[in-house]
Amino acid sequence: MRHLLSTKDLSRDEAVRILDIAEDMADVQNREVKKLPTLRGKTVVNLFFEDSTRTRISFEAAAKRLSADVINFSAKGSSVSKGESLKDTAQTLAAMGADGVVIRHHASGAPQVLAQSDWIDAGVVNAGDGTHEHPTQALLDAFTMRRRLHGHASRGRALDGVRVVIVGDILHSRVARSNLWLLETLGAELTFVAPATLVPVGAESWPAAVGFDLDATLAAVRPDVLMMLRIQSERMNAAYFPNAREYARQWGLDDERMGALRPDTIVMHPGPMNRGLEISSGAADSPQSTVLEQVANGVSIRMAVLYLLLSGERGEREALS
Amino acid sequence: MRHLLSTKDLSRDEAVRILDIAEDMADVQNREVKKLPTLRGKTVVNLFFEDSTRTRISFEAAAKRLSADVINFSAKGSSVSKGESLKDTAQTLAAMGADGVVIRHHASGAPQVLAQSDWIDAGVVNAGDGTHEHPTQALLDAFTMRRRLHGHASRGRALDGVRVVIVGDILHSRVARSNLWLLETLGAELTFVAPATLVPVGAESWPAAVGFDLDATLAAVRPDVLMMLRIQSERMNAAYFPNAREYARQWGLDDERMGALRPDTIVMHPGPMNRGLEISSGAADSPQSTVLEQVANGVSIRMAVLYLLLSGERGEREALS
Amino acid sequence: MRHLLSTKDLSRDEAVRILDIAEDMADVQNREVKKLPTLRGKTVVNLFFEDSTRTRISFEAAAKRLSADVINFSAKGSSVSKGESLKDTAQTLAAMGADGVVIRHHASGAPQVLAQSDWIDAGVVNAGDGTHEHPTQALLDAFTMRRRLHGHASRGRALDGVRVVIVGDILHSRVARSNLWLLETLGAELTFVAPATLVPVGAESWPAAVGFDLDATLAAVRPDVLMMLRIQSERMNAAYFPNAREYARQWGLDDERMGALRPDTIVMHPGPMNRGLEISSGAADSPQSTVLEQVANGVSIRMAVLYLLLSGERGEREALS
Repeated sequence: MRHLLSTKDLSRDEAVRILDIAEDMADVQNREVKKLPTLRGKTVVNLFFEDSTRTRISFEAAAKRLSADVINFSAKGSSVSKGESLKDTAQTLAAMGADGVVIRHHASGAPQVLAQSDWIDAGVVNAGDGTHEHPTQALLDAFTMRRRLHGHASRGRALDGVRVVIVGDILHSRVARSNLWLLETLGAELTFVAPATLVPVGAESWPAAVGFDLDATLAAVRPDVLMMLRIQSERMNAAYFPNAREYARQWGLDDERMGALRPDTIVMHPGPMNRGLEISSGAADSPQSTVLEQVANGVSIRMAVLYLLLSGERGEREALS
Repeated sequence: MRHLLSTKDLSRDEAVRILDIAEDMADVQNREVKKLPTLRGKTVVNLFFEDSTRTRISFEAAAKRLSADVINFSAKGSSVSKGESLKDTAQTLAAMGADGVVIRHHASGAPQVLAQSDWIDAGVVNAGDGTHEHPTQALLDAFTMRRRLHGHASRGRALDGVRVVIVGDILHSRVARSNLWLLETLGAELTFVAPATLVPVGAESWPAAVGFDLDATLAAVRPDVLMMLRIQSERMNAAYFPNAREYARQWGLDDERMGALRPDTIVMHPGPMNRGLEISSGAADSPQSTVLEQVANGVSIRMAVLYLLLSGERGEREALS
Repeated sequence: MRHLLSTKDLSRDEAVRILDIAEDMADVQNREVKKLPTLRGKTVVNLFFEDSTRTRISFEAAAKRLSADVINFSAKGSSVSKGESLKDTAQTLAAMGADGVVIRHHASGAPQVLAQSDWIDAGVVNAGDGTHEHPTQALLDAFTMRRRLHGHASRGRALDGVRVVIVGDILHSRVARSNLWLLETLGAELTFVAPATLVPVGAESWPAAVGFDLDATLAAVRPDVLMMLRIQSERMNAAYFPNAREYARQWGLDDERMGALRPDTIVMHPGPMNRGLEISSGAADSPQSTVLEQVANGVSIRMAVLYLLLSGERGEREALS
């Protein structure tokens, strides 16, 4: 694998392979062998054009456990904010010897531009671009589902026939999009539920059902997995957005809806949660919730991705993919 | 030791043990063996809800010299500032595999909440919480006093009978509170001196004398140690606060007061200093001043604390404490 | 070498020695031996009073490849911004055990003050002070010229007789000043070209010719090296500054001027570039451009400087210089 830009690009074999390597990484961590020498001497740059402490420190922890050096580059206050082009920034990082660039950008497609140019030889990981994709989030979600559903028998398996419902602001969610493509690739059956104003035009051509009524959907699908998306508070006053109370009442996972789920349905959230809005504390903290497993699995997935992109020589890496 | 939250919790034996381990750390540093492998593979998160570059880099230097990986998490611009609860932040760090969390928080008691919850398995170090405590500061102060007073014969000793005067804004000072409990435990005799409006209600029940007249106190006590607290400039316009010139005149350590001290009285300040306000440059830079030794000793103390909290396995650590 | 404060202080032998060690560093990097153990256990503090992400990460990458620990200290939000003196900041870093301090400061002369004081024992590297100097930039420029002009036969050589033209805001440019002294020391023949309002009083006593007409200068000198300085956009509205279109027309390296250069003239820029203002994209991306080599060479030069300043014991270092 050269880059990780989108889950849409991943073949089923590639996706399962990443999940399997993440299992190895998780195993190693559990045996208290926290630090592997695999990426010693490699430099990973966290190039963040948007603040995201959580995602940044997850990648930072993953890179450091593989013994890479990590350099944090926040675009705020840098020449980037003074109008330097992405091209010049990228070429500068390449010239400084970056082996991997983890990029978070407000513009959809920025990581693709970076990777498909000849500006940079480094492996590029999309850590969230605009409303487009956030592939390591979808991978850690899939990893979390697989572990919960198949336990120690997870290795080598996909998610065939697993029924997943994702609820929330589908229109703006890169998490939703990355899950959409990856879940299809892995054989899951996906239904989105959202207020009608928060479903994008063109969703009817997606490989997912779309519903507008959460209770009806849950009753009909009886999902194995229910994933609640985060509501971005900065969107809450937009005309197309229901007010918070209305949102919570109609599309939130409250205690009553939680009680009506199958007892083995797992409840997911990418974090950070707005408790009492899209998810109640009862749901968030229940044994069915995987919120914290998702965080832990995020480190394993990111170790796996950095390992695949950065270990070995560049030529060798191409051959592997 | 599981956590370091308050000096009030420390027994005399525990406190002396920390000081003794810090002596070992200082010795190692002096022999130019700057890096110990002790915490290789451990991750220390600096979770700072308030800016404090000095304290953060002291902990960062300490952790790195023990070969730990350090992740800096400033709450500014993070989901924390978007309303995420301390609980969710803590559980997230735990899930990412943090072995130690160094927390600085504007709310008194936040580190206790963190440690006494079941949110997090990591060792928690209070790096300053509201007006409550700043235990590593008190430990480095005690370490500095012990070294100055007992030199190479310090190991194993406490501070019995040492006369300490602490001057300044006792009302808001976590440094004063942490010193209060630790100095009592170590057997020192403590007197606070402050403007009447800067002494908290309830101070009469503390194990310390309280005076309002600096000159009278110095003449009566003839202290072994005189510690000047930092004046927070943001408090200086408050109604209860003397103006700066008045403060300096009545409660500042100026050159005249400095000259009247016993020549072996040591002069301490937690830094950063407001030269000309609570302390004159003559006093700050005199051979009696320990300001820079305090900074150096801070790294040794923090190495000792991180070592005690993070080395070995969790179960083993419990048994040690 | 104790410190690197200014290129004016460097003898020819010292300068050539730094370039030669940078060659070794570049060689090592190219052999994929990215990490050297040379500075293990040493602590480098990046003390930045001005934002400069590029320079900071170049030093950070250099230090980490030599296995030093790096602590980033941004003066924003620190006690420095609360009025702490440079002296107290410096002494604090020294007390924490900093072996090297890389300082960027808005005031010309700040690094000298730091180094010539007895505040700090650490090696001090000037990473840009006001409008005064930026010596590692000049060193990486000289290194880049030498490599382009002499290739593998560079070691041991200076730049005797090399004709260099530097164009732009000479008045405010620390890059121009550092190049001025270093190029003289290395035997190059330097001409500055600038609008008359951007040439400092006293420039007539410098060891450089000064011209005001770019085309005439290029025709007369036929330079081996043409260096375009960055225009600081914050200066562009000043009364003494030509407007942007006028600047680009008269002093910018556009495609036409680029085409008129000797085909072996190398084109340099310290970055980040304002494409279309002081340099066209055609010029910036041409094979004659060394912009990215300069960035890569910057890491090698900074490795060399940190190595010279920080390896070995303090006493030994003095003897070497």
